[in-house]
Amino acid sequence: MKKIINEPSNVVSDMIDGFTQSSRDLLKLKGNFNVVVRSDYSQLKDKVALISGGGSGHEPAHIGYIGRSMLTGAVCGDVFASPSAKQIFMAIKSIGSKMGCILIVKNYMGDIGSFSIAREMCKSQLPDIRVEIIVVDDDISSILMKLNKFSNNDIDKDIIRDKYKTITNRRGIAGTVLVHKILGGLAEQGKSIDEILEFYNEFISPSKSLNLVTMGVGLSSCTIPSVGSPSFTLGEKEMELGLGIHGEFGIEKVELKPSKQIVKSLIDNLLNILPYSSNEKSLIVLINNLGSTTNMEMAIVINDCLNYLNEKGFAIERLISGTLMSSLEMSGISISLLLIKNNQIINLIDIQTNAMGWPNNILKPYKNKKDSILTLDENEYHDINYDHLKLIKTSKKNGDILKEMVLLGCNSLIENSNELTELDKLVGDGDLGTTLETLSKSIINSINIIPFDQPCYAFRKISSIIQDSIGGSSGLFYSIFFLRLSNSLYERLTTTNNNQISTKDWGLSLIDAVNSIKELGKADIGDCTMLDSLIPAINQINNCCFSDDGNNLSFILNTLKLASNEAQLGCESTIEMIAKKGRSSYLGERTTNIMDPGAYAINIIFKSFQSINLNKF
Amino acid sequence: MKKIINEPSNVVSDMIDGFTQSSRDLLKLKGNFNVVVRSDYSQLKDKVALISGGGSGHEPAHIGYIGRSMLTGAVCGDVFASPSAKQIFMAIKSIGSKMGCILIVKNYMGDIGSFSIAREMCKSQLPDIRVEIIVVDDDISSILMKLNKFSNNDIDKDIIRDKYKTITNRRGIAGTVLVHKILGGLAEQGKSIDEILEFYNEFISPSKSLNLVTMGVGLSSCTIPSVGSPSFTLGEKEMELGLGIHGEFGIEKVELKPSKQIVKSLIDNLLNILPYSSNEKSLIVLINNLGSTTNMEMAIVINDCLNYLNEKGFAIERLISGTLMSSLEMSGISISLLLIKNNQIINLIDIQTNAMGWPNNILKPYKNKKDSILTLDENEYHDINYDHLKLIKTSKKNGDILKEMVLLGCNSLIENSNELTELDKLVGDGDLGTTLETLSKSIINSINIIPFDQPCYAFRKISSIIQDSIGGSSGLFYSIFFLRLSNSLYERLTTTNNNQISTKDWGLSLIDAVNSIKELGKADIGDCTMLDSLIPAINQINNCCFSDDGNNLSFILNTLKLASNEAQLGCESTIEMIAKKGRSSYLGERTTNIMDPGAYAINIIFKSFQSINLNKF
Repeated sequence: MKKIINEPSNVVSDMIDGFTQSSRDLLKLKGNFNVVVRSDYSQLKDKVALISGGGSGHEPAHIGYIGRSMLTGAVCGDVFASPSAKQIFMAIKSIGSKMGCILIVKNYMGDIGSFSIAREMCKSQLPDIRVEIIVVDDDISSILMKLNKFSNNDIDKDIIRDKYKTITNRRGIAGTVLVHKILGGLAEQGKSIDEILEFYNEFISPSKSLNLVTMGVGLSSCTIPSVGSPSFTLGEKEMELGLGIHGEFGIEKVELKPSKQIVKSLIDNLLNILPYSSNEKSLIVLINNLGSTTNMEMAIVINDCLNYLNEKGFAIERLISGTLMSSLEMSGISISLLLIKNNQIINLIDIQTNAMGWPNNILKPYKNKKDSILTLDENEYHDINYDHLKLIKTSKKNGDILKEMVLLGCNSLIENSNELTELDKLVGDGDLGTTLETLSKSIINSINIIPFDQPCYAFRKISSIIQDSIGGSSGLFYSIFFLRLSNSLYERLTTTNNNQISTKDWGLSLIDAVNSIKELGKADIGDCTMLDSLIPAINQINNCCFSDDGNNLSFILNTLKLASNEAQLGCESTIEMIAKKGRSSYLGERTTNIMDPGAYAINIIFKSFQSINLNKF
Repeated sequence: MKKIINEPSNVVSDMIDGFTQSSRDLLKLKGNFNVVVRSDYSQLKDKVALISGGGSGHEPAHIGYIGRSMLTGAVCGDVFASPSAKQIFMAIKSIGSKMGCILIVKNYMGDIGSFSIAREMCKSQLPDIRVEIIVVDDDISSILMKLNKFSNNDIDKDIIRDKYKTITNRRGIAGTVLVHKILGGLAEQGKSIDEILEFYNEFISPSKSLNLVTMGVGLSSCTIPSVGSPSFTLGEKEMELGLGIHGEFGIEKVELKPSKQIVKSLIDNLLNILPYSSNEKSLIVLINNLGSTTNMEMAIVINDCLNYLNEKGFAIERLISGTLMSSLEMSGISISLLLIKNNQIINLIDIQTNAMGWPNNILKPYKNKKDSILTLDENEYHDINYDHLKLIKTSKKNGDILKEMVLLGCNSLIENSNELTELDKLVGDGDLGTTLETLSKSIINSINIIPFDQPCYAFRKISSIIQDSIGGSSGLFYSIFFLRLSNSLYERLTTTNNNQISTKDWGLSLIDAVNSIKELGKADIGDCTMLDSLIPAINQINNCCFSDDGNNLSFILNTLKLASNEAQLGCESTIEMIAKKGRSSYLGERTTNIMDPGAYAINIIFKSFQSINLNKF
């Protein structure tokens, strides 16, 4: 058993201290009664008190539902064990109001026994307090066990519903949370105990009205701290259908199915019981996380649930979802449906409460899924506004040279892919070779649709191709380099009202582009990264560009040769370095005597430029 | 892998549909951008927009934090993978406000890269929108890895803090949620982008101010749906210290410890970094559930955390806890501390939001734990008000007879314990023998302090002893029988202003007492329970009581003999019955040919009465 607890025998009292100590809205009754009440309980004497409770292990139930317009108090038993009648009696005694007290009990023999005895104790000890018990039994799975008709839609619903009413051992599960909220709202409004009971019996009671129904599935069991091992086990591809909230078995072990099928199966069964009619199809839906279901799965279940109920023609007025009635760390969900036969229910659900277990936002689903989509104008969907970038031009010859350089660099990275991979395996995760190969192939594939005589647009396009070709962070530095190069050239030329790029512009914009890598990687020369090769090479180009107008081929050839030399020297300097940035930095001194693969890739690119044949331009 | 999903490759888009379809406060951007925005985004043009995002699998982050006074929009990558720059660009484009846009990014290279490239894209494509990036890096575990000083308090805090500032690879984890809330509040108030950035840098930024620090532990790994197996494994008694939120390893694998020690260890490390001083010790505390930690454990951690921080002299102004930044279904927690250096922070935390991931109630812990205790007057703690019950009397002789009967019944149950156990094993869980033995021994132990000549008080006392002696539901029926007997006699005599019990009173109150069992068990004669023996026996007693004033020993002897006969016959009738109530009802026809153990216990008791020696009274 792996749990963050102290003594297993103290889990309940430690937990209660955590709840009460952390919220000035709560008070713990002195003594070992495990009773928690609203801290403003003494100002509620003119309202009906609502007390719930039962075994612990269902948190946030029940302490989490103590608050305005919800419970007045709660009584905690041990994990999955009923509290004693005396504990419950003390809760009634400490907050009991002259307006009466309703005990909301889930339909388990132990709970009903303790709460009934507590009420019996009150008769002679607290004769002024009228105590009533509401037994919530919303779990429909017992009827399915009896009828042996699970997942069968070809049955007469009236027969099922009549049969269902006669069954008394239906469990009380997640639907109980809606009872807390709705009755809590009525009590807060000052309704009398008779009015509250009448409202409950007519519109909510699962046994009297059938309007509240729940069914769940479990994917894993749970471990009671004092026991230390799971209550049951399930195979890797099994789930329990119709299970309760105490780690007990469900009605059937079935094969794990996709969310859509699970949701359909649960809802079909719920709708067999729910007494809706064609003009009464408004629902409150509660989707409960039994414990360790991920929020991602919860959202997927919600999606499937809303889709299926909409398909069936139901209007979902409110959706409540979250870990509302848990079974320790059990993985699984339940779906509760409450048929709205009185619109006051919606208002009662909406009333704000400070109960910490109730969700922050009671969701109002869209009536039509399409209304949940934000549609922009067609042209808003383009990430590149081509026109202004295309205005910046260079000569056809220069464009051809750029294209040739890009091709050379890409082909060289592809040729040296294995070598890069081997080097990267020593200090990184070994994917640099394949990443740069993928990136290069993508550029080569699109090379003929890139207009290199419009460099701003071309570099923007290359940046975009890199982004699209490889996921994750590997291509980020190459992508931002070309993007900044494009932006820098564009800004440089638009601020000077020029549309032809000068040699100096090239040098300065390349420096800008390198700076984008420095900023992004928070790195600089000496950190044992690609920058150790790139910075000296680009600095060299910039120096050359400042001292020459560059409009001849020998200048370009010479510049590339000098830059390549710098790239080579810089690359070799990383052999002696301890990596300070990037993934290899985690290895510390182990990176000494190894050339940085990122720097080596830059070296490969600049080396490839030397084989450029300018005579063909 | 057991998850409630549909196609593993569709988890993110299914999830987004679940979030957006279920809330009219959200809109999903059309297209495959996985961008979600506030549905009132178009009315927010005069406010700074806040956009966050990153890999999915951290739900409720980030969609759950979209709402008033929190995020304007969020961008979702694949599970634990960064969204692309184009996705982020589209988010900025769709909601970008002229007041500017702040991108809140957790410090992971992939995220920073994509968000940085998106900002770079905006420079030329959306020149009117000023885009700024905030990088949250609140995880302190990297410093501990570097210093190799984990759990060591004897280090110079200034040195640690200086060193800490130089480390750039600190991860962004749960503390980010506080950034969403605080900056969201400022944006909603109409603050300018510069004001918001300044506030962040001065009071919140983990790297610039050190005021926000986080550290966590993991007890289990998690499984990426498209991968299908866990990212790492941990032994049954191991936990990972200082782990991130992407299923990656932490800084150290250590032995699982009790909650108190885990909390102390995390907080000690956090306080090594946090730049508090003796007069600046006010905190916002955030306790994050990484996924499948139970709410019970969360409350225990909260308790230990508050205790330890109080012990260290800190004032916890607000506590935020829950599954706030998850790592799929990972079990574990993190603790974040935000040092309050500007009281506006508390107001910003308190502002209401409709973001569904934010907790319903921001907790205000008690300054002193003792204030969280409700103390009643000393005499309120008694569950029995003795005085009025003691007023109801019977003769000493009758009292002695009652005492003798109780002793006979108890001893007989003890003697027949094994037989009851064997019978119960056939149809129940086999604990009836030991349960009734325990119950009987408890009564015998107290027999001399029970004043049987005050029957109302005596039966009340016996009911209480039964409740205290055995847990669970087993003794409930015996307990409520004696309690109702006490109440019924009391009510009968007080309404007739009598204090001596008549024979008729005895008969009628015994019927009332049996009815309490019928009500509690929703059972009657024929359901194959203890009632099949008890009802005819008590009916017989009542009949006798009606036809005789009973004030002589032969009447009692005769009545008990007749009752015992009825008990015996009733008990035997259960052999032919199919159990309809209670635990054995689950066995259906398998209970035929077996005598009901509950009925047999009643038979044992009544049989024992026949050996009463009335001559000694």
